[in-house]
Amino acid sequence: MTWYETKGRDSDVFVSSRIRLARNLNDYPFEGRLDDASRREIINKVRSAFEGDGEYRFVDFSALPENERIAAAEEHKVSPEFARGTAARAAIESSDGAVSVMILEEDHVRIQSILPGKSLKEAYDRAASVDGKLDSKLNIAYDDKLGYLTHCPTNLGTGMRASVMMFLPGTVAAGGIRTLANQLSKIGLTVRGMSGEGSAADGCLFQISNQVTLGVTEEETISKLSDVTGKIAEQERAFRKKLAEKDGERLNDRVMRAYGTLMYATMIDTKELFSLYADVRLGVCLGLIEGIGTEKLDTILIRSMPAMLMRDHGGNMTPAERDHARAENVRRLLSGASRED
Amino acid sequence: MTWYETKGRDSDVFVSSRIRLARNLNDYPFEGRLDDASRREIINKVRSAFEGDGEYRFVDFSALPENERIAAAEEHKVSPEFARGTAARAAIESSDGAVSVMILEEDHVRIQSILPGKSLKEAYDRAASVDGKLDSKLNIAYDDKLGYLTHCPTNLGTGMRASVMMFLPGTVAAGGIRTLANQLSKIGLTVRGMSGEGSAADGCLFQISNQVTLGVTEEETISKLSDVTGKIAEQERAFRKKLAEKDGERLNDRVMRAYGTLMYATMIDTKELFSLYADVRLGVCLGLIEGIGTEKLDTILIRSMPAMLMRDHGGNMTPAERDHARAENVRRLLSGASRED
Repeated sequence: MTWYETKGRDSDVFVSSRIRLARNLNDYPFEGRLDDASRREIINKVRSAFEGDGEYRFVDFSALPENERIAAAEEHKVSPEFARGTAARAAIESSDGAVSVMILEEDHVRIQSILPGKSLKEAYDRAASVDGKLDSKLNIAYDDKLGYLTHCPTNLGTGMRASVMMFLPGTVAAGGIRTLANQLSKIGLTVRGMSGEGSAADGCLFQISNQVTLGVTEEETISKLSDVTGKIAEQERAFRKKLAEKDGERLNDRVMRAYGTLMYATMIDTKELFSLYADVRLGVCLGLIEGIGTEKLDTILIRSMPAMLMRDHGGNMTPAERDHARAENVRRLLSGASRED
Repeated sequence: MTWYETKGRDSDVFVSSRIRLARNLNDYPFEGRLDDASRREIINKVRSAFEGDGEYRFVDFSALPENERIAAAEEHKVSPEFARGTAARAAIESSDGAVSVMILEEDHVRIQSILPGKSLKEAYDRAASVDGKLDSKLNIAYDDKLGYLTHCPTNLGTGMRASVMMFLPGTVAAGGIRTLANQLSKIGLTVRGMSGEGSAADGCLFQISNQVTLGVTEEETISKLSDVTGKIAEQERAFRKKLAEKDGERLNDRVMRAYGTLMYATMIDTKELFSLYADVRLGVCLGLIEGIGTEKLDTILIRSMPAMLMRDHGGNMTPAERDHARAENVRRLLSGASRED
């Protein structure tokens, strides 16, 4: 069960919680300057650290078909940059899908853990456990003053990026995202659209994460992010309540129409899917639609991304073919029918 | 079973066929100049012509609540003008709902028969039978040269208006309505939007009727209208075929989305209903949606008109209340559930 298939804590606002730790090995230059032999060495060293541990499996990532690599990024298991790269790189995955170690992303090693809902602490514990394993077996670059040494100076220190994916339709409707972004930047946090840096904030999904890694502890960062996202969630729920009170009938109509479109449209592009997802997910959270969990909608969204569809289809498709496959996929997942295969 | 509840011949294009005969009594001035006593006399005379015939019932139309009167016009059982009038007037209805005699519309008597689908001849036979009954019992104004004398000179002669309600989404999509209107006017026929003179051609519904009543026989008029509407239907089917071949996938998507909206929206106004009706009816006719007949959609459309909703509700409603009731009504009728009452 990947994160999106499981109902997490406070899933009305919290979609997922993610920790990413950047680590590098001593005795090697940073990723951009590595020759092929060194890349192989690093991959093998990291791989050997997990040897004999049945919970983890090694994936020769650069040998995967492109659709499978991009699909892993669409699932948020690896970064888009890692998925797109063509030089030798590998991944280590935990059997439950919550942890993935990217070998030769921007840093030699990036440990990522992702869990559904409000679960930053648990996600950190999962990542820290892998970090401990690596630390005991590899020679990790660490400076007493600077902390973990990373490729990009913005990661120096803890090397940790903690981020929470939040569903904020109420805040969007109230026009509160810009204010939120301004407030967050003043306290060393940042807000971005779902797919990462600079992407459109589709589906009312926003990633809130720490910007500061130097001069703070992991615990401080997580505690601060937990507190702040908790407050954002309270505000979001208040906005939703106001929205439902002010124009509940129109909201209900919008939600039900979106549901009807998901159930009956035969062509849906990604942009529209994000919008329908947001309306129906809000309806589910407000109790306007019953019998569906937020995890069903999160699953529908993730599993209808372009590369996910092509991976499941087993080959490339044109945008029009994807729009058809997407609509069919949505209908199948929403009506709960199991796939005949 | 009223016309819209029954599947008629060639219902893919022919929604209904209607005949209206204008008749006046000798020894009375035309309708606008009648005093109350004369109005009562005329009502009683016409009523008495049906006395003892169990197939017909008398309705004291001016005593009906306004919603019920307007609803009868929305069902096309009486004319909108007849429904809106406040002076004493009455109606005689056949038990199957196909024939209604308006007493003191613009003429003293207007016999109307309406049947589903392509059925002009049958509709004429029904009206002619009532006409014969009236002729044998009342002193009908008739001139050997001018034919039936009518209030408006445009009805002189046969006093007959024959009209066919056609569903022409293919012709609309092909931009062919203006050409059609020009062609029809040259041969003494006219095309109008569903609700009558000057109304918007919503729902791709068009009334094609004769303009000429003088110097022609009823049979000639009906035969000509049958031939011409038959050709319009052939052309419409060709347009639909082309539409389905050219962009069938997009058409299917539009049809299914409209169906989804009908099934799930919680507020639908009349204008949107006409548009959704047209898309779904076309889908049914092209076999894109199965398990629904055209008569179901015609029923949904007629029974969701404003006064119909208020009549069934038993009182006036605001436009917003009607939009809710309309959506509920549509959902109920479309899902085939019977009303719990």
